[in-house]
Amino acid sequence: MGSQKGSESYQAFPMNGGDGQHSYAQNSTNQRRGTDSAKNIINETILEKLNLETHLQNSSHTFRIADLGCSVGPNTFFTVQNIIEPVNLKYQSQEEYTTDSVEFQVFFNDHVGNDFNTLFKSLPEDKQYFAAAMPGSFHGRLFPESSIHVFNSSYTLHWLSKVPKEIVDKNSRMYNKGKIYFTSEDKEVAEAYSAQFERDLESFLNSRVLELVPGGIMILIICCVPPNALNSFQTSINIMGNVLAEMANKGLLSEELVDSFNIPIYVPTSEEARESIKKNGNFKIVKSEFLFRLMNSEYQRDAHSSSMHFRAALEGVFKEHFEHEIVDDMFVQLEKRLASEASILTDPRYKELGELLILKRN
Amino acid sequence: MGSQKGSESYQAFPMNGGDGQHSYAQNSTNQRRGTDSAKNIINETILEKLNLETHLQNSSHTFRIADLGCSVGPNTFFTVQNIIEPVNLKYQSQEEYTTDSVEFQVFFNDHVGNDFNTLFKSLPEDKQYFAAAMPGSFHGRLFPESSIHVFNSSYTLHWLSKVPKEIVDKNSRMYNKGKIYFTSEDKEVAEAYSAQFERDLESFLNSRVLELVPGGIMILIICCVPPNALNSFQTSINIMGNVLAEMANKGLLSEELVDSFNIPIYVPTSEEARESIKKNGNFKIVKSEFLFRLMNSEYQRDAHSSSMHFRAALEGVFKEHFEHEIVDDMFVQLEKRLASEASILTDPRYKELGELLILKRN
Repeated sequence: MGSQKGSESYQAFPMNGGDGQHSYAQNSTNQRRGTDSAKNIINETILEKLNLETHLQNSSHTFRIADLGCSVGPNTFFTVQNIIEPVNLKYQSQEEYTTDSVEFQVFFNDHVGNDFNTLFKSLPEDKQYFAAAMPGSFHGRLFPESSIHVFNSSYTLHWLSKVPKEIVDKNSRMYNKGKIYFTSEDKEVAEAYSAQFERDLESFLNSRVLELVPGGIMILIICCVPPNALNSFQTSINIMGNVLAEMANKGLLSEELVDSFNIPIYVPTSEEARESIKKNGNFKIVKSEFLFRLMNSEYQRDAHSSSMHFRAALEGVFKEHFEHEIVDDMFVQLEKRLASEASILTDPRYKELGELLILKRN
Repeated sequence: MGSQKGSESYQAFPMNGGDGQHSYAQNSTNQRRGTDSAKNIINETILEKLNLETHLQNSSHTFRIADLGCSVGPNTFFTVQNIIEPVNLKYQSQEEYTTDSVEFQVFFNDHVGNDFNTLFKSLPEDKQYFAAAMPGSFHGRLFPESSIHVFNSSYTLHWLSKVPKEIVDKNSRMYNKGKIYFTSEDKEVAEAYSAQFERDLESFLNSRVLELVPGGIMILIICCVPPNALNSFQTSINIMGNVLAEMANKGLLSEELVDSFNIPIYVPTSEEARESIKKNGNFKIVKSEFLFRLMNSEYQRDAHSSSMHFRAALEGVFKEHFEHEIVDDMFVQLEKRLASEASILTDPRYKELGELLILKRN
C-alpha cells in the first residue's frame, strides 16, 4: 500500500463549523441553489448513463456514494438524496430487481479538521442509507480500489492543496508583494495559480479513477467562470486585499503580514477546467451545463448575504494568519464596499460561477 | 431497506471526550492492558481461523475491519493494528498473494455523540489503512450486508441500550427505590438487568451476523465476572450509590433524583454471556480466555486510578442526571472510600472483569 494514505501533507481550510451566525451551515444557501438547480440534469444523467449490470450480477448489494468536501451540512444531505432517488429508480427498472437488491452506504468526506461531530448530529432522521465519514484530503487517495459507484463534489475543486510556493518566495519574480490575490495585470502570479490548480485537479482525478467502479459516475460542480463572464470571486477577494493593504498603510497591521498571505483558491475559466480533465485522460464529460442557465433569473445578490457567504467560507483561512479583529473589520468593510460599488452585484456580466460536469471513467 | 437505519432510538452514553485530565483518552489504560494481553491469542486465532479463500477469489481487494464502541482513542488504534498484523501475515502466506492483494478499510464506530473530531485528529500518522467513522448504536444495523471481515468490540457490551424500564416504574414491584444499582439481595432488579442484557446482546448478534462476510471473525472482550470471582464493578457502583443516598439524607439533593437514576450497565457472569451467545445460535465461540489469566500478576490497582477510570467512563451518565458539583463530590468520595476499604483493591477474589471471546459465523 502506498504511503499517501498515512500522512496528511495537504493544507486544510475548513468551512466555519457549528451552526452559529457565521457558520457555513447557515451561510451556504448559494451552494444549495447550485445543487438544486442541477438536480434534474443529475437525475436524467444517472438514469441514462449509470451502468448497473455489473453491480446486479455481483454478490454484493452495496451501492456506495461519496460526497467529497461535504463540510457540515445541510447541503450534503440534499446532494446525497438527489443521487439516491434516480439510482433507486434505475434499480427498480431492472428485470432482476428485488427489494433486497440494494443497500446504500454514503461516505461524507472532508478534511480531518472538519466538524464531523456537527455533521453526524444533523444527519436526517429518515435517511435510507448507512452514513460514514471519511476524513482526509481529496487530493490524495481516500477509498479502496473500485469501491465507489458515484462520487459527488460540489464547489470544492477551486480550493488548492496549497498556495503556489513561488508567489510567497521573496526571491521569485512571481513574489506577490502587497496583495493577497491577483488582478488581470499580474500574469505571472495568475500562471502560478493556474499551474497549481492543474496539478491539484490531476491528483484528484488520478485518485478517483482508482476508487470508482467500472461504469461509475462522478458529479462535479466546478467553480469556474463561464465564457465572456467576469470573475466575481476575483473582484471580491481583491476588495478584501485592498482593505488589508489600506489597513497596513495606516499601520494597523504589518505589511509583511499582507505580503505573506495569499488565498489558496483558483477559479479557472470553464475552458481551463475542461482542458485539464481532457489532458488527464481518465474521464470523459458525459454532460455539462452552466449553472447560471439553470438558475432562476430573478435571483438578486445583496451585499450582506454576499459578504456573509465569503465569511463562512474564508474566515478560517484569514484567522489563521491575521488577528481576529482585523478579519472582523475586513468583512465589515467588504459588505460596505459591495453595497457602495453596486455594479459588482448588478452588472450582468457577473454570472453565477459554476458549471455542472458529469464524468464517466474511460 | 428497514427503518432501523433511519432513527437512533437508543440511549447514548459517550465516554468523556477531548484529552484533558478526566478524558477517556487519558484514563483508559485498564482497557489497554486488556487488549494488549489478548494480543497473542488474537494473533494466533486470526492466523488459524480466518478464511481468505473467498476473499482472494473475489475481484475486490478490500479487507474491512470495524471497531464497535471505539470511543476516542488511542486504544482503538492499537486494537486495529493488532488485527491488521496477523491478517497481513495470513495474506502473505497464500499462494495467490501479491502486494496488491489487499487494502484495509477500517470503520471506527461509536454513538453519534462520540467525539469523532478528536478521534480523527489523533489517527496514527503511519496508518496503513483507509480510516472511516461510522456513527450509530451497535444494537442496530450499521453496515451493509456481508461487508465486514473482522469485527472487534472491547469492553462495550456491558453498556445496555437502556435502563430496564420496570426498575424506574414506581408501580412495578421491581422499582429500585433509593438505589442506583443492585446488590445480591435485589433478585428482581438483578433479573430485570439480566433480561435487558440478553435482549441487547441478541440485537447486537442479529445485526452483526448480517454484516459479517462468510468466514468472518468477531473479536469480543466482554466485561464479565469469571467463575468464583467477585464483581468489583458492582461493589464500586454501590459505593457511589451509597454516597448519593447519604447526600440525599443530608438534604444535598432530592431523594427523587436518586430513585429515578440507575446505571445502564450490566456485568454478567461469564456463563450468562456464553449462554446468550449459544441461545442466539448465529455464532460459535472458537477461542476464549479470561483476561486475568493473561495479565501481569504484579499489577496493583490503586484508589486514585480506579476512581479516575470510573469517572472517565461514567461521568457523562451521572452529569446528565445530577448537578455537576454533586457528581464531582461523589467521585472524590469514591476515591476516599476505595482507599480506606483497601480490601476492594487487594482481595484476590476481585479479578479482572473480562473475557476474550472470538466468534465465527455459523
